[in-house]
Amino acid sequence: QRQGFPEVIYCQGKEPHQVAEIFQSLVKHNDNVLATRASDKIFNKVRHLIPQARYNDLARTIIYQKEACKTPNSKYGKVALVSAGTSDLAVAEEAFETAQVMGAPVEKFYDVGVAGIHRLLNFYDQLTEASCVIVVAGMEGALASVVGGLVDVPVIACPTSIGYGANFNGLSSMLTMLNSCASGVSVVNIDNGFGAGYQAALISKLDTR
Amino acid sequence: QRQGFPEVIYCQGKEPHQVAEIFQSLVKHNDNVLATRASDKIFNKVRHLIPQARYNDLARTIIYQKEACKTPNSKYGKVALVSAGTSDLAVAEEAFETAQVMGAPVEKFYDVGVAGIHRLLNFYDQLTEASCVIVVAGMEGALASVVGGLVDVPVIACPTSIGYGANFNGLSSMLTMLNSCASGVSVVNIDNGFGAGYQAALISKLDTR
Amino acid sequence: QRQGFPEVIYCQGKEPHQVAEIFQSLVKHNDNVLATRASDKIFNKVRHLIPQARYNDLARTIIYQKEACKTPNSKYGKVALVSAGTSDLAVAEEAFETAQVMGAPVEKFYDVGVAGIHRLLNFYDQLTEASCVIVVAGMEGALASVVGGLVDVPVIACPTSIGYGANFNGLSSMLTMLNSCASGVSVVNIDNGFGAGYQAALISKLDTR
Amino acid sequence: QRQGFPEVIYCQGKEPHQVAEIFQSLVKHNDNVLATRASDKIFNKVRHLIPQARYNDLARTIIYQKEACKTPNSKYGKVALVSAGTSDLAVAEEAFETAQVMGAPVEKFYDVGVAGIHRLLNFYDQLTEASCVIVVAGMEGALASVVGGLVDVPVIACPTSIGYGANFNGLSSMLTMLNSCASGVSVVNIDNGFGAGYQAALISKLDTR
Amino acid sequence: QRQGFPEVIYCQGKEPHQVAEIFQSLVKHNDNVLATRASDKIFNKVRHLIPQARYNDLARTIIYQKEACKTPNSKYGKVALVSAGTSDLAVAEEAFETAQVMGAPVEKFYDVGVAGIHRLLNFYDQLTEASCVIVVAGMEGALASVVGGLVDVPVIACPTSIGYGANFNGLSSMLTMLNSCASGVSVVNIDNGFGAGYQAALISKLDTR
Amino acid sequence: QRQGFPEVIYCQGKEPHQVAEIFQSLVKHNDNVLATRASDKIFNKVRHLIPQARYNDLARTIIYQKEACKTPNSKYGKVALVSAGTSDLAVAEEAFETAQVMGAPVEKFYDVGVAGIHRLLNFYDQLTEASCVIVVAGMEGALASVVGGLVDVPVIACPTSIGYGANFNGLSSMLTMLNSCASGVSVVNIDNGFGAGYQAALISKLDTR
Amino acid sequence: QRQGFPEVIYCQGKEPHQVAEIFQSLVKHNDNVLATRASDKIFNKVRHLIPQARYNDLARTIIYQKEACKTPNSKYGKVALVSAGTSDLAVAEEAFETAQVMGAPVEKFYDVGVAGIHRLLNFYDQLTEASCVIVVAGMEGALASVVGGLVDVPVIACPTSIGYGANFNGLSSMLTMLNSCASGVSVVNIDNGFGAGYQAALISKLDTR
Amino acid sequence: QRQGFPEVIYCQGKEPHQVAEIFQSLVKHNDNVLATRASDKIFNKVRHLIPQARYNDLARTIIYQKEACKTPNSKYGKVALVSAGTSDLAVAEEAFETAQVMGAPVEKFYDVGVAGIHRLLNFYDQLTEASCVIVVAGMEGALASVVGGLVDVPVIACPTSIGYGANFNGLSSMLTMLNSCASGVSVVNIDNGFGAGYQAALISKLDTR
Ligand SMILES: Nc1ncnc2c1ncn2[C@@H]1O[C@H](COP(=O)(O)O)[C@@H](O)[C@H]1O
Ligand SMILES: Nc1ncnc2c1ncn2[C@@H]1O[C@H](COP(=O)(O)O)[C@@H](O)[C@H]1O
Ligand SMILES: Nc1ncnc2c1ncn2[C@@H]1O[C@H](COP(=O)(O)O)[C@@H](O)[C@H]1O
Ligand SMILES: Nc1ncnc2c1ncn2[C@@H]1O[C@H](COP(=O)(O)O)[C@@H](O)[C@H]1O
Ligand SMILES: [Mg+2]
Ligand SMILES: [Mg+2]
Ligand SMILES: [Mg+2]
Ligand SMILES: [Mg+2]
Ligand SMILES: [Mg+2]
Ligand SMILES: [Mg+2]
Ligand SMILES: [Mg+2]
Ligand SMILES: [Mg+2]
Repeated sequence: QRQGFPEVIYCQGKEPHQVAEIFQSLVKHNDNVLATRASDKIFNKVRHLIPQARYNDLARTIIYQKEACKTPNSKYGKVALVSAGTSDLAVAEEAFETAQVMGAPVEKFYDVGVAGIHRLLNFYDQLTEASCVIVVAGMEGALASVVGGLVDVPVIACPTSIGYGANFNGLSSMLTMLNSCASGVSVVNIDNGFGAGYQAALISKLDTR
Repeated sequence: QRQGFPEVIYCQGKEPHQVAEIFQSLVKHNDNVLATRASDKIFNKVRHLIPQARYNDLARTIIYQKEACKTPNSKYGKVALVSAGTSDLAVAEEAFETAQVMGAPVEKFYDVGVAGIHRLLNFYDQLTEASCVIVVAGMEGALASVVGGLVDVPVIACPTSIGYGANFNGLSSMLTMLNSCASGVSVVNIDNGFGAGYQAALISKLDTR
Repeated sequence: QRQGFPEVIYCQGKEPHQVAEIFQSLVKHNDNVLATRASDKIFNKVRHLIPQARYNDLARTIIYQKEACKTPNSKYGKVALVSAGTSDLAVAEEAFETAQVMGAPVEKFYDVGVAGIHRLLNFYDQLTEASCVIVVAGMEGALASVVGGLVDVPVIACPTSIGYGANFNGLSSMLTMLNSCASGVSVVNIDNGFGAGYQAALISKLDTR
Repeated sequence: QRQGFPEVIYCQGKEPHQVAEIFQSLVKHNDNVLATRASDKIFNKVRHLIPQARYNDLARTIIYQKEACKTPNSKYGKVALVSAGTSDLAVAEEAFETAQVMGAPVEKFYDVGVAGIHRLLNFYDQLTEASCVIVVAGMEGALASVVGGLVDVPVIACPTSIGYGANFNGLSSMLTMLNSCASGVSVVNIDNGFGAGYQAALISKLDTR
Repeated sequence: QRQGFPEVIYCQGKEPHQVAEIFQSLVKHNDNVLATRASDKIFNKVRHLIPQARYNDLARTIIYQKEACKTPNSKYGKVALVSAGTSDLAVAEEAFETAQVMGAPVEKFYDVGVAGIHRLLNFYDQLTEASCVIVVAGMEGALASVVGGLVDVPVIACPTSIGYGANFNGLSSMLTMLNSCASGVSVVNIDNGFGAGYQAALISKLDTR
Repeated sequence: QRQGFPEVIYCQGKEPHQVAEIFQSLVKHNDNVLATRASDKIFNKVRHLIPQARYNDLARTIIYQKEACKTPNSKYGKVALVSAGTSDLAVAEEAFETAQVMGAPVEKFYDVGVAGIHRLLNFYDQLTEASCVIVVAGMEGALASVVGGLVDVPVIACPTSIGYGANFNGLSSMLTMLNSCASGVSVVNIDNGFGAGYQAALISKLDTR
Repeated sequence: QRQGFPEVIYCQGKEPHQVAEIFQSLVKHNDNVLATRASDKIFNKVRHLIPQARYNDLARTIIYQKEACKTPNSKYGKVALVSAGTSDLAVAEEAFETAQVMGAPVEKFYDVGVAGIHRLLNFYDQLTEASCVIVVAGMEGALASVVGGLVDVPVIACPTSIGYGANFNGLSSMLTMLNSCASGVSVVNIDNGFGAGYQAALISKLDTR
Repeated sequence: QRQGFPEVIYCQGKEPHQVAEIFQSLVKHNDNVLATRASDKIFNKVRHLIPQARYNDLARTIIYQKEACKTPNSKYGKVALVSAGTSDLAVAEEAFETAQVMGAPVEKFYDVGVAGIHRLLNFYDQLTEASCVIVVAGMEGALASVVGGLVDVPVIACPTSIGYGANFNGLSSMLTMLNSCASGVSVVNIDNGFGAGYQAALISKLDTR
């Protein structure tokens, strides 16, 4: 029994009514419920049963939180969430919703690509204050190395499948991140915003200095 | 300037005398120096110049630590280091030396494969006390998922190139770990014990509860 | 002439009326007919001609069995069918229908993933009584190794294409299973529930102790 | 505790003296000990401690069997071992030694390639009498499909890394075998003669008709 | 200027009206015109302009032949066209139409898989009379090796993308054929029935014994 | 029994004395014997037993031919053998020796790369007179397409593993050749000079116009 | 701030209204705006706001240019744009629009495949006058090597995903181009006409001789 | 005949004496001769015949230049050569020697990795003055994107095979560079310092402003 953590439903390949039923039954015994990869069709079924459920249509997540859980845990360290291009937003938002439902305060730094390095450097001070940084990037995924070189806290790198041709649906960015020459970078699956957010929240939770 | 962290030399492709000179110059201005992928030929050159340097021939690391740095930082959380087979030991030891030179107290759980799950379950209590768990595994790399399912702290999974045939030099275990259905698992490069140890130590450092 | 075995139709790429005609002609001279990868469109055509045909819409199989063949052969050993996640059910059911149409008694253990190892261990006694175990798993496919380590009978591992990103449509789980460090595990093609069920039934047939 | 089964040592990456010590300690409490991937250097160390140990230099296996275990178990079904080319012999012999140390009677059909199909057909009667057939083949690995089409018992296919160019170290034969259009074929890792022999012996053990 | 050969239009990615116009202009100056990968939409546009054009909806080819070209050239050697499963027919028919429009007499041997080797052996005499054999096969593609071992004339092997999972859209059958241990086998691209038919016709044209 | 064709020994992985014995026994009952991938160590053993055997150290072939077989069969069509770079010579020579031992007259066009297209065009007239053209090329393997576009006879393309980096040991040139947009090109395995020579000789044999 | 260069919008994955708004805001402060991968739906939204915007439906680009920018910069060197087949036109046109919006004069040489080498050679004089040559080719991509061998200026090779089977969505042509044995060839991503046009224009801009 | 350009010998797979003879004969009729991938064994043979030849043992190049060619052509634009790690030096030096033998003035910026971005930014002014920038990087190859984002001239990216595990011998850095989200980056083969230097020199030659 994983106390305090959300129960999570992975909606891919499940019918809307199936998800709605699972969601409802989980709400009964849990403070937080998170559904990922949820279409709006699915959300429509869910909110019928659970009107308090909230949908993020970019992230494609449905979240139910007991009132008391709605504000981030002020004791946890901050998670910085850096993402490269407009097209990576869906994955970044999945990471955001996951980390915050787990109680972590998250600060977003979106549209910060390596091809315009100065924009990233402007955020240097804010990044170095975080307990943990999530980097979401597609195409060549180089952002993780640059961020990893700047900060001295764990970086969780999440490759996305954004790109074409020799990107091979995210393979390229994933390999880039795994080969990062910066220390303190570990990697989750392609498009796994959920996994990145979860890992970052676990880490931020430790940081109660 | 990364205060408190070791300076690191990656020896692959460097000549023994080159490494020795770099090592000596780093010792002058740093409390900790770590060299990875070091042959004993390299160590022989290094200890000539720095007699206090210590060699771990399994890990293939050379470490120099100022006296004051030699005991783990008691304020940091504990790192649990789980490894599967005898052949994964070299990578596990690289992770061990890296984490401890960074100040983290490390507890080892070696020879704990999934094909004999009961041995792993025996360590359940000790694992759940760690701030962070490193899992080093080759072959099919399934250990990361099992451990990830048992503990509620970040798991850093390090695939090794141990195996043959459809293992494709660690590709198989790396993919296994990236696809882990357990939450809270992130992955470093194949055989990158250094990276796993480094990330785990960064995390353990946050845990000063 | 394969006496006693079902005649099998692989429906992928065949027109509904083609399948229906082949089905009808096979029914004339065989005790058992099995069609796999059958859409419900195909089933509608088939049941028009063969009203006794039965459809499993999860497995996407159509089965015709002479009355006398409908109960499993009590002399055969039991097949245990273990599957990991909800999304693997379609493949697991294909394996189920195939094994049972060949006469094998099959016991199902569904929703038994490695990330919650205790649920699997609860079934330990039942698993060890089988002649043969089928393991159906997607994502990282680690379940085959854990089951292989628990039982002393042949394990037929069937990877599924469930997953995303670095799963590469089942490649990851397939490689995991081929690299299994547990002895007594052999593997069929990705999503080949038919092949797993067939092989398991052949094995269970030998076990007339 | 796996009663009756051999204890197995995988020698790859272990020092001769390490293997010898493990071997000696296992001999104390077991009826059968098998070491695979053993160089003759390793065997020389082992026989020093255990003079009764026997080396198969083609298979690169070392076997110790208590006197009573030396004859195959006459109650078990027969394993037929089919192999394609001269170069596949090492893997075939590893399968042979493994199956027989587990008690299975094994009959060999070597040098039976698909490019000369008549030689294979000559053995038709003998093959159909086996409980289980092992097929060891490199290059294009087509033999598994042809044998699978001939017999009605489980076929365990073992691809080898023999070949060059587009063989990609056994990938080609492995994929061929996984895609076999013959039913009743399951596959072990490339060059995994041990795994094939083990699985076949488990199956043959069931066949006590 | 390639006298006697058909002009060929590859329709993939071209608009129906574009194909129709190209077709019409080629008919003016050529004895034979062949369009491949043609949808029936395309054929409808073409036959509007060229009523004598003939469509093979399985092969997805459109052919126009001057009256005098309609019978195979009796001086050319015979092409034998062997194909494995029902699903490979589309590719086989593309090969058929291509070879015959080039003047080669073609004899078909369809539905001859390796899993039922005896059906193939029944055609032995007819196969050995051909100047050249085309083998079209998907799944594991083993048929090319078996046929190559039977006949002493050139075999043109055409892998198809039929299959699933570890077939990787024809990669598996292509690798099998390239690794064939039978001599006298060369390979064209996956699903390239056109290329196989063309090469076979070139060869058969030489055989005017 | 394949009358007239050479018996062939593939030496890779065989001991010198093994090859020598096989060679000697084949010489007794055959007019032609060909050994490929033969080191000079192997040749030394062979010529001890068969002094008439001839070694081509570039091709790494050993050939024995009865006196009467030593001149090419004047009835066969000519094989043109085109090769790209200096480094492809070993494979080209293997093709040469194979084709000529089978009786085909072979004309060589070496050192004809696509980066200097004019050299190739100079040979246009000679190429168009052949019955069949072999193209041996590494690096990007583009030569096969250019030659295929020039001639109207079958082209047998043989990729070599010459190159580095993104060549991936011949994969690049193999894919290039399989995708050739010129008609009448079929492909053998990487570095398979033997296969190319064999196929070309089979084709040239048909051309007795 | 990149003076003189166009601002570029990559439309893939953006909503029509989003693109239109970005486009409008860029027009305010820039002389040139280029949108790539734009559907006609997107263009309809854009031209509503910016009536002067021009659409190339083959290239799928939208371009806005201040009057003064509409003629190529006569000081720049000429870019020659060579493309192989009809199906590569979309990518070639993207390269064309990109290069010309950056000010480069571009001359097109379309439908120039290697399988008909003489057509290419006819353009020899014109090609050698360019400052830079773009080669766009799918299938086997051999054209880049042939052109690279003819000219003495930089060749920018752009592989396309045109092809099937062993083309693997452009992987084959990309590898061919990277392995080119002609000097002076560098490569952009598969289907990246934008990248090729951009790089060629940068180079042509240097050539103000 | 490529006037002014060096004649180039690719030594891989050639015997020392072969290289020496080719070198000598080229020196007779050329102003510049370059040999790449030359071992010191090869150099020893060459300098025996051509005492003026110069060896760069890091680059593994041998260069002969007529006196008049020894200074860079002051009319050409400058090439900036940026490289990431110590281990990439060999490839960078091959690029250096190639570019300068072709007449280009080259400025080196070595040891400038993305993990320490500030070092790179320090060189900003010098980089922006070049006509063309070469980026040599292994591991994750992210440097090309960062440099591409900083400068407005063509960047020639050369991936190296430096790295391990998921680097797959340079595949990772190559894919990174091909997917670069910075405009104006084109890529040569892995470890192809020669190709990068050649292309950069061709470009710099155009820049005679
Ligand atoms: N075993 C290792 N694997 C990957 N990176 C490493 C390893 N050891 C050291 N490094 C990294 O390599 C850097 C030193 O590289 P170098 O300057 O070439 O000695 C360190 O800062 C680490 O980030
Ligand atoms: N789901 C499946 N996956 C793989 N092979 C199958 C499947 N279902 C049936 N088969 C095989 O396909 C054969 C029938 O193919 P067909 O003659 O094309 O209908 C059967 O004999 C089985 O061996
Ligand atoms: N077809 C294309 N392929 C690759 N990159 C492109 C393409 N079109 C535009 N870009 C790049 O994408 C950037 C704009 O991306 P965005 O801000 O997402 O619109 C531009 O600056 C270009 O560098
Ligand atoms: N390091 C290198 N990598 C790739 N190609 C090279 C290299 N060095 C030389 N070359 C090419 O190889 C050609 C000479 O090849 P060869 O005639 O075999 O000596 C030259 O014209 C160059 O185009
Ligand atoms: Mg860092
Ligand atoms: Mg966990
Ligand atoms: Mg077991
Ligand atoms: Mg069978
Ligand atoms: Mg043959
Ligand atoms: Mg041709
Ligand atoms: Mg050139
Ligand atoms: Mg730039």
